[in-house]
Amino acid sequence: MKSTIRDVARMANVSISTVSRVLNNPDLVAKDKREKILEAIEQLNYTPNALARGLIHKRTQTLGVIIPDISNLFYAEVIRGMEDSAHESGNNLIICNTVNDQARRLASVKVLSEKQIDGIVITSEPIYPDSYELFRQLNIPIVLAATHSLEYEIPSVRVNDEQAAYDATEYLIRKGHKRIGMISGSTLDPISGLPRIQGFMRALRTHGLEAAPEIRIEYANYHFEESYEAMKKLYAKFPELTAVFASSDERALGAISYLHENRIQVPEQVSVIGFDNTRMAGMSYPKLTTVAQPLYQMGFQAVRKLDQLINGKQLDELRTYMSHWIEERHSVRDININ
Amino acid sequence: MKSTIRDVARMANVSISTVSRVLNNPDLVAKDKREKILEAIEQLNYTPNALARGLIHKRTQTLGVIIPDISNLFYAEVIRGMEDSAHESGNNLIICNTVNDQARRLASVKVLSEKQIDGIVITSEPIYPDSYELFRQLNIPIVLAATHSLEYEIPSVRVNDEQAAYDATEYLIRKGHKRIGMISGSTLDPISGLPRIQGFMRALRTHGLEAAPEIRIEYANYHFEESYEAMKKLYAKFPELTAVFASSDERALGAISYLHENRIQVPEQVSVIGFDNTRMAGMSYPKLTTVAQPLYQMGFQAVRKLDQLINGKQLDELRTYMSHWIEERHSVRDININ
Repeated sequence: MKSTIRDVARMANVSISTVSRVLNNPDLVAKDKREKILEAIEQLNYTPNALARGLIHKRTQTLGVIIPDISNLFYAEVIRGMEDSAHESGNNLIICNTVNDQARRLASVKVLSEKQIDGIVITSEPIYPDSYELFRQLNIPIVLAATHSLEYEIPSVRVNDEQAAYDATEYLIRKGHKRIGMISGSTLDPISGLPRIQGFMRALRTHGLEAAPEIRIEYANYHFEESYEAMKKLYAKFPELTAVFASSDERALGAISYLHENRIQVPEQVSVIGFDNTRMAGMSYPKLTTVAQPLYQMGFQAVRKLDQLINGKQLDELRTYMSHWIEERHSVRDININ
Repeated sequence: MKSTIRDVARMANVSISTVSRVLNNPDLVAKDKREKILEAIEQLNYTPNALARGLIHKRTQTLGVIIPDISNLFYAEVIRGMEDSAHESGNNLIICNTVNDQARRLASVKVLSEKQIDGIVITSEPIYPDSYELFRQLNIPIVLAATHSLEYEIPSVRVNDEQAAYDATEYLIRKGHKRIGMISGSTLDPISGLPRIQGFMRALRTHGLEAAPEIRIEYANYHFEESYEAMKKLYAKFPELTAVFASSDERALGAISYLHENRIQVPEQVSVIGFDNTRMAGMSYPKLTTVAQPLYQMGFQAVRKLDQLINGKQLDELRTYMSHWIEERHSVRDININ
């Protein structure tokens, strides 16, 4: 049996709130009482639990993070930034993986709230009305990372996906490509689906390239296997393409895998640009040119924002958009040159 | 302000333990009292917190998981198995990432314990005396996944690393390879370092192949970049090698990247076998032949074991060793054939 604050109080013959005070503000407690209590804590091997401490401070210095899919390397980098930011502000992180499931997502928010965390960072997912209603009921500070909400006033940190997709497509155009296809997430995904399609189409229009989305775009969710299939379909209906914009690194690798297996050289015959700049982008063959999101910084800033929110500080801005850039590696060929 | 069990008790004009009883065993409470309490719960938008529930049951149905490095895809699969197992037994999972740091590891165990989780699964790390002392003090059920402890009596689930490394090496030998190198983790790592080196050396000895470890082995920690460098050194000192056993998939990809960049064909000139069978193995070019650990099953069984432990059930065995196998893809050439 683990000993509790009550056991400590009993052994030291003081009240529970005196023990709590010793844990939080020892200077407010008379020396002899304090020593009796510390002795009892030692004898009982007592570890103050977060709730007991929180009885006075109402803070547990623990933050929750909700991610939809731990197998996506995207989150690994974001979480590294969150960890360092949390460490800097004296917080611990607790992570829940929701397996892309709205029921588990709501369950995770409830579990974290029960665990008395001080706030939650939610990554990547759109905010649905039932989520928002739950946040409101639980009255818990929330920050969004790699997602945002235009409907609700929730602080967020992300890149401008439409502009980033525009820049990726324009990069291909500047390298001399005109017949460009896209492998995209679902148009129903308001975060990484639709805005990236819009950016892709805008770049084509701006540069006077005819853009029939039925021909140019194939769809795949985040998984490698589906993107392999999407590349197959895209190539079948648009065999004259010279470049592909894949709206995630994993989609790009699926596309490249199809091209390799069909002896289509990357980038000599078909160029591929990805999106995210996860660690995978540097491990593939050829190494992937990709739109870099500042993943580490997004995680770092999201936790900083949450900490400010918890401490009642004024936020600099509600919705922060961070800069993206093109990370040039070896998967795009400049066809102006030869 | 979030409402508490005390607010509910006050509004319904009953004692706190009656409210608690309604949450856990409603049938034991008279109907009129029960209805008053449920009405108060509704009016106050009260969510029972885990601790309040635990006051009677001493269980919060939440399990902690400690992983050393969320950016390693190894854990993604293991956690998928844990999630499904937890779901099956009605538990929630909370994950802490320790960034391969013993101080953060101990801090995570304390945080989880404060959050009143029912037990912890620790992955991959060796168990040091200070960790064991902490587990003992906190008196919290622990199960090890992808690691074990021969010093302490802690239940564990893993593969037999020595035998798996033996089998990987023997697989290369059966494919006609004699000049085989290895890219390994540190010999100081008692889990995935030393046993895999021992298995590698035993296979060479058993098959009468001269085995000078100074020539045959280069070292790299889990990161891709170091393995790229290790392959460079290995190739420089042992240029006649025809095959490499890399003791993780990420190490194998680092090796392959070096070979690609130096126009050494994989597997035509040099074969590479990995270890783990993470998702990455199916995404590389060529696709990686690798020793498959049953990652999902290891996670699943570890959480099941933890649940049994928490519920005071007899474990079938203290240390479970799961079967591994060779997942054949395209990175090893059979040189007997041509």
